[in-house]
Amino acid sequence: MNFELTREYIEELKKAIEEQDDVTTFNYTKELHPADIAVVYRSLTIEEAKYLYLLLDNEKAADVLIELEVDDREKFLKVLPGEVIARQFIDNMESDDAADILAELPEERKEEVLSHIENVEQAGTIIDLMSYPEDTAGGLMGTELITVNENWNVLTSLKEMRKQAEAVDEVYYVYVVDDGGILKGTLSLKKLLLVHSSTKIKNIANTDVIFVKTSTADEEVANIMQKYDLVTLPVVDTIGRLKGRITIDDVVDVMREEADKDFQMVSGITEDIEPHDNVWLLTRARLPWLLIGLVGGVLAAKVISNYEDSLRIYPEMAFFIPLITAMGGNVGVQSSSIVVQALANNTFSMESSFKKVLKEFSVAIINGISLSALILGYNLLVSDSFALTLTVSSALFSVVLFASIFGTFIPLLLNRLKIDPALATGPFITTINDIAGLAIYLVVGRIFYNIF
Amino acid sequence: MNFELTREYIEELKKAIEEQDDVTTFNYTKELHPADIAVVYRSLTIEEAKYLYLLLDNEKAADVLIELEVDDREKFLKVLPGEVIARQFIDNMESDDAADILAELPEERKEEVLSHIENVEQAGTIIDLMSYPEDTAGGLMGTELITVNENWNVLTSLKEMRKQAEAVDEVYYVYVVDDGGILKGTLSLKKLLLVHSSTKIKNIANTDVIFVKTSTADEEVANIMQKYDLVTLPVVDTIGRLKGRITIDDVVDVMREEADKDFQMVSGITEDIEPHDNVWLLTRARLPWLLIGLVGGVLAAKVISNYEDSLRIYPEMAFFIPLITAMGGNVGVQSSSIVVQALANNTFSMESSFKKVLKEFSVAIINGISLSALILGYNLLVSDSFALTLTVSSALFSVVLFASIFGTFIPLLLNRLKIDPALATGPFITTINDIAGLAIYLVVGRIFYNIF
Repeated sequence: MNFELTREYIEELKKAIEEQDDVTTFNYTKELHPADIAVVYRSLTIEEAKYLYLLLDNEKAADVLIELEVDDREKFLKVLPGEVIARQFIDNMESDDAADILAELPEERKEEVLSHIENVEQAGTIIDLMSYPEDTAGGLMGTELITVNENWNVLTSLKEMRKQAEAVDEVYYVYVVDDGGILKGTLSLKKLLLVHSSTKIKNIANTDVIFVKTSTADEEVANIMQKYDLVTLPVVDTIGRLKGRITIDDVVDVMREEADKDFQMVSGITEDIEPHDNVWLLTRARLPWLLIGLVGGVLAAKVISNYEDSLRIYPEMAFFIPLITAMGGNVGVQSSSIVVQALANNTFSMESSFKKVLKEFSVAIINGISLSALILGYNLLVSDSFALTLTVSSALFSVVLFASIFGTFIPLLLNRLKIDPALATGPFITTINDIAGLAIYLVVGRIFYNIF
Repeated sequence: MNFELTREYIEELKKAIEEQDDVTTFNYTKELHPADIAVVYRSLTIEEAKYLYLLLDNEKAADVLIELEVDDREKFLKVLPGEVIARQFIDNMESDDAADILAELPEERKEEVLSHIENVEQAGTIIDLMSYPEDTAGGLMGTELITVNENWNVLTSLKEMRKQAEAVDEVYYVYVVDDGGILKGTLSLKKLLLVHSSTKIKNIANTDVIFVKTSTADEEVANIMQKYDLVTLPVVDTIGRLKGRITIDDVVDVMREEADKDFQMVSGITEDIEPHDNVWLLTRARLPWLLIGLVGGVLAAKVISNYEDSLRIYPEMAFFIPLITAMGGNVGVQSSSIVVQALANNTFSMESSFKKVLKEFSVAIINGISLSALILGYNLLVSDSFALTLTVSSALFSVVLFASIFGTFIPLLLNRLKIDPALATGPFITTINDIAGLAIYLVVGRIFYNIF
């Protein structure tokens, strides 16, 4: 369907549900993609949600459940018996989605649902998958695979693939393993279309296959799939046995989450929030950073209060406090962001660390000189106080230099300490640079006012 | 190959190139993925780059060229004759990559290269593709498609697909069209594995296909592919004729670029830069925002200078200037970032605008009250000036409220005016909030100092 029409459809479906208009509701859900139906769920009462769910067929209901946001899903599953969850949802999902959704349930509910899964083998697979940490390749992978033995020929393989294909949603790649289940290569469907049916798989398999281990971090999985333009990525255990595959759509979500997290960090928001979250959540995500800013402000007040007497004589010293703190903050955030982004994108550079620091230092000096020269010119024209003019320019130069180096150094340090370097962007770096900049400004001021 | 080994390999390949060790260089390039070889190119001289290129086979050389960064590619192509570019690179690429790379060349070089492409039909396709704007579905799509007519049966289709597959790198989907070339549906390869060979395509095609027009914006393409978990997305012209397909790997790049752009905007960086860019580029990306900050600082100085006499009598007024400006800046960036992120991710919310603003207002009031109460308590304990104590608390409350509303409103306004709302994050909003906060603080101060 044409994407443009979707928003209208969503609005009309919502109206049909409110009016309990079975026929219209049913027709609209038939037209809409599960991801769009999930949008509607967000604004339904629990009664309306149940009504809508009863009108969906099992397969579609399962797809919608996967697309729901975590909190919507939690609310909805809470009111359903474990047997319904197992039979109508879990049984209609791929193993990785089933494991993700089960993992969200409280412990006793988990066991209740698992006990109702009809296919014991599937229940076992789901339990195995839940044992991998969420943020690793094992936690991302699904076990729905089409595999052929390297010793089969094309005809046997096609027959086996037909059998296996019934359990798998989409076939992008066929994996080739040896008798011990060790990953040996991939088989592109294109190749299968082109060769004779008696050809041995061994001879047409592509052995140049990129894979990860179950323990590989999800961010690295995302980087690998992006770098090598992969649609699926096989996952092996420590001895190389094929355990599952990760598909690009799961990784796209990881990438967006990572990007959102870094963006939020630099904006001073601590949690993953969305505009439709409630007031309490929105406040909780923002207040912590503001408290850091508040403490920083109080410390800055302390620093300035040491200069109370000077300010009484030279009140013009106060004029440029906002300029100094703002520039320190801006320069610091720029420097740290460049480092954080390079680390996040894994922009593997062959430059030495020394060269990197030297470069950052050069940029800081150019910026510092340009900005100081401008403010020097301005103050020479406008200000009556020569001491103030010199103070502002030299303090600004020092602050730009300090903030650049500090902003570059801190995320590198955090990364070395295995702490998320994104912590070093946003309010944290701004607050420290505010205070440092202020101290530099006031010390420089005292010196120049003593000379002139 | 195991990803862990790659970095070592890259280092060793670089050494082999420097030593002009043909055998080692050749062996390493055979092992490495084009994306990894591209990393090596970044640190090679033009002579070394040519040496390496001569050791690669044509297909691999073309793949490496696609993976290079724009400026590396430009440098490298400049020294090659148009005929070599056409025969050795363009002829070995998919149409979308070929069009992208040709589009980067200067006008006269473009024509030179095009004149050397052997296959006239392919040259025509590339010219057609270059006519679409870069940031639309047409600019993203490739024309390598496998299509079958809805009136064929499975046997005929398989025969035709074999023919078409030779020109296509990977087969994920088969598209179904009618006699007029209008897109009718898709055919999953899984279905083809499962049905009888005399089945009509019409009967097994999936007609519920999501598509976009050539004019659809690339950001919307990315949102659609992410929302619906698509690996490929067909592109049609205004009357619905199938023109090409977009694959997820191209869209992953668009997504990362968008995320990077927003992150850079909020960090106060104007251009897409990477740590290995030169000092001049790095400076140019940062100085403009710093200049805005500088102008803001000068304006702030002007505002404070109006209160020079008050400061002489009550120098303690200056103590809390950094606190007020910092809090205004932080709150403003938080508010605008939440809006920008929601707009970027297309988080389609069914809430009314009124409810959204009301919510933001509630969050602001809770944050404002909490922060003001804290600073009130602190100053009651520490400060001798009751007027200052009241000034700081009430100004802080007002600033938090103002910055929240202003920070929410500006990106929404920009978006309405079709300007990138991300402009409203970072230094821009911080600077305005600095000045506004300062003005509020000083006005409130004058009032309270007059009363007490």
